[in-house]
Formats: sequence, C-alpha cells, structure tokens
Amino acid sequence: MAMPCPPFIGSDALSKDAPSLSLSPVILTQDDLKKIAAYKAVEFVESGMVVGLGTGSTAKHAVDRIADLLRQGKLKNIVGIPTSKKTHQQAVSLGIPLSDLNAHPTVDISIDGADEVDPGLNLVKGRGGSLLREKMIESASKKFIVIVDETKLVKHVGANGAMPVEVVPFCWKFTQERLQKLFEYAGCVAKLRTSGGENNEAFVTDNGNYIVDLFFERDIGDLKAAGDAILRLAGVVEHGMFIDMATTVIVAGELGVRLIPDEK
Amino acid sequence: MAMPCPPFIGSDALSKDAPSLSLSPVILTQDDLKKIAAYKAVEFVESGMVVGLGTGSTAKHAVDRIADLLRQGKLKNIVGIPTSKKTHQQAVSLGIPLSDLNAHPTVDISIDGADEVDPGLNLVKGRGGSLLREKMIESASKKFIVIVDETKLVKHVGANGAMPVEVVPFCWKFTQERLQKLFEYAGCVAKLRTSGGENNEAFVTDNGNYIVDLFFERDIGDLKAAGDAILRLAGVVEHGMFIDMATTVIVAGELGVRLIPDEK
Repeated sequence: MAMPCPPFIGSDALSKDAPSLSLSPVILTQDDLKKIAAYKAVEFVESGMVVGLGTGSTAKHAVDRIADLLRQGKLKNIVGIPTSKKTHQQAVSLGIPLSDLNAHPTVDISIDGADEVDPGLNLVKGRGGSLLREKMIESASKKFIVIVDETKLVKHVGANGAMPVEVVPFCWKFTQERLQKLFEYAGCVAKLRTSGGENNEAFVTDNGNYIVDLFFERDIGDLKAAGDAILRLAGVVEHGMFIDMATTVIVAGELGVRLIPDEK
Repeated sequence: MAMPCPPFIGSDALSKDAPSLSLSPVILTQDDLKKIAAYKAVEFVESGMVVGLGTGSTAKHAVDRIADLLRQGKLKNIVGIPTSKKTHQQAVSLGIPLSDLNAHPTVDISIDGADEVDPGLNLVKGRGGSLLREKMIESASKKFIVIVDETKLVKHVGANGAMPVEVVPFCWKFTQERLQKLFEYAGCVAKLRTSGGENNEAFVTDNGNYIVDLFFERDIGDLKAAGDAILRLAGVVEHGMFIDMATTVIVAGELGVRLIPDEK
C-alpha cells in the first residue's frame, strides 16, 4: 500500500526553500493539488500526537501520508481518531493505531478537507456526508488544519453548492420545509439527499440520519445566528457550517501551496 | 374500550358553574388528578381539528378521552398526530384517525404532559424518552395545552429531577462529559439513561439515539442561552427544555383544576 512520494510533492519541495515556481513545469490534476495540500498538512503532525483523521478525497491523501511516515519510522506513537466509518476502514487497512473521543477527549491536531472556505476561514463541510462525526472530533482539536484546492475558496458560505444539514428521518419533509422557510430571504431551496441508487432512496449517514442540502441564491449573512436558528429546529441534528474552527487552511493551486494565515 | 366518565371528572363538573370544592369529598389519587387535567384539556378540542397526541401517563388519558368523544359522536373529523411510537399504538387501538407532520405541517392543538413547569410556563419534558418527536409536533402547534398535577410545578428548571438531552450514540461519553462541563456552574451531574434491563444497556429513543440526563444542584439561569449552548455541541440532537411553547397549563390539585394563564 506504500505510495512513493512524487518529487513535486515531497515535503522538501514544499518548504520555503523551494520556490513554488518549481512546480510549474508539471501539469497538475485536481487530485495532485489535493495531494500537495494533504502532504503539507501532515508536516504539522509530530510523534506522540492524537490525530483526527478526516474524510473525503483530500483527507484520504493525508491518511495515506501518515501511514507512510509511520512505516518509515519518521512518525511514532500516533493515535488516529477517524471521522467516519470509511476513514476507519482506510486507517485499519493501513495499520494506523486508532482510538476514539471517549478515550481521547482532546485531539492534538485534525486534518480534513472542506467543500467551501470563506474569507473568515469558516467552512462548509458534509457534501460527503460525514459532517457530524467530523464536527465532534474537529471541535475537540487544539489545531484543525483544513486542506483544499483553490476551487474551494468562496466569497460566502453556499456560493459554490450545498450547505448540508443532518436531520432525523422522522418527518424529514416537515424539517426540510422549515429549513427552506428559515432561509427564504436568501432564496433557499432545500433538497433531501438521495443515494443515487435504483430506487433513489434517501442517503443515510453513519448515524442513521438523513441529509437535507440547502442551496442559497444569496449570502445568508451572520453565520452564527444562522447556525443557532438551524439547531433550534427540533428534527435537526447538525449543520455543515464549521464556524471559527479552522486554525490553518492549506490551499494548493497551480502555482504552489499557500497557508492562511501565512506561516510566520 | 369506552370508559364511562366518573362524575367528578366530567366536563360539567369542571366547568365554572361547578365549584371545584365539589371535588373535595372524593379521595383522589395522583392518577385521578392526571385524568382530571387531561379531560379538561380535551374540552379545547373541536371537531375538524388536527390534534397533537402527547406521550406519557397523563397524556394517555387525553387520548382515551378523545377516542371516547369520537365514539360518542361529540367530536368529528379529528386527525391525530402521535408524538411517539407508543402513542401511535394506543391511538390505532382506539380507532383515532392518524396522520403526520409531513401531511399536516400545522397542528391546531397539542395536548401533552410535562415533567416540570416553571413560573414562566417553560417545561422540562422527556423523562419518558419522547422529547424530540414531542418538540417537533408541539412547536408546530397553534395551541399547546400542558396537563400536569401539582407536583410538577417547580421554581426553576431541573428542581425536581433530570433535564434529558437526546444525543447520538457515537462517542456519547464524550458528549456527556461536555454537557456536564457546560453546566459546571450549576453543579451538574450528567448520566447516561439505561433501560434497566438485565445488562443495563443504554435506553434507546424512537430515533435510535441515547438520552443523557442532566441533574442540576442549582438554577441554570437563562434558559434560552443554555438551550443554544447545548444545541451547539456536535453530538446533541435535542434537549428537553420546551421554552416559550406552552400556551395553557392545566394543573390538577386536590382542591380542583386551575388554568395558567387563568381562563378569562
């Protein structure tokens, strides 16, 4: 399972000594960019840390990278806290020692992707469906490193797609209607997420709930107020806005990697 | 299944023309008091209404009474919205026509018991375990009639027992610890509710979640702020405080029935 690190994404190539222009001759796919961001994030991980392991196509690269460094002996005594059943499986297959929040209520660092990052480093997460476990683990983390490619940077939450809300299955349609009405002022359309299977049944989260995706035509304004209003609806379990949680965002673009806030 | 209405709890006996002192010669059990309050509440139900059907030992009497009046032809075209699987079964067995919030997003009236009622008519509910469905239905109701005996009136929330919080099973212990810490200032002790079975396994709600019961030594203060803080914890689904929801509280005591606010 060990994957050799391509020269353009090695940690040396990404250090400040190696100008990002050195990347330019290589034609990079979006997946390459995700990998660059993920590998950079893993540089923040130190031996002995409790590490929140994110979910999704970008976070997957970070989990792979941590497993590589463990095998190489460059990292030791890592305890991983997976944010989904899928990541749990990946980590087990790679031999990363795992635990959970019950045993480790404080996490040293979490690394995860995001669907959107706004200028205040507020995130939208959950288009992959794991928002609740991700939020539990990442809100218990001293450092939360978010890894994205440039396409995820948005002017405001909901600008490039859905803001997911996890709801209990009981009378989900009623909850969906209340959610849509709550954001009428922003031209909201609320849709139940389906699994895409033959019968187009509802997508079910790791917690046995449904997801209602909210699509906004306009900026919803004050995110904290919006978040509280969503949570006050009985029937809502959690929303996909991660407000004031990210400590560092790593953005990979064709011209290189940058950190927000800047590395000192 | 029809139960004849005992003379001391008939609606005539409870009307303003019949002084409550007429009850005094009868020795009333707590269950009698519950029945008195329940029957009084059903006087608010009119033919054609969509009625939220509560859960618990007090609400059960109201559901029985509605079924009686339907059979007698004194009520017609009622649609019941049950707040739990248990109430659903009771209503089906009594022949009450049922629907749900998806089909009837606005409920005319809901009738339900409560574990506590504070001086501002804020409630604690959920010691029976149905808080989430109750809150969904009762918050969608134009009128919400709460029926209690005198022992449920408290000076502040949590004064006579637990304030239940529904949580996802995933890492419930972590969530329990965060809840207890949130109310450290009020001397909070948080305990997972168990089913009391042989293996003392966790009690599971109708939605497949767990209940953490919060016991407070002191008044927790601002209920809205407390409620928002609880809901902001990822892992929490809903709490048992029903704030600003009750429109009328019917209290049955040994000296009779009174309504808060007073009937005009």
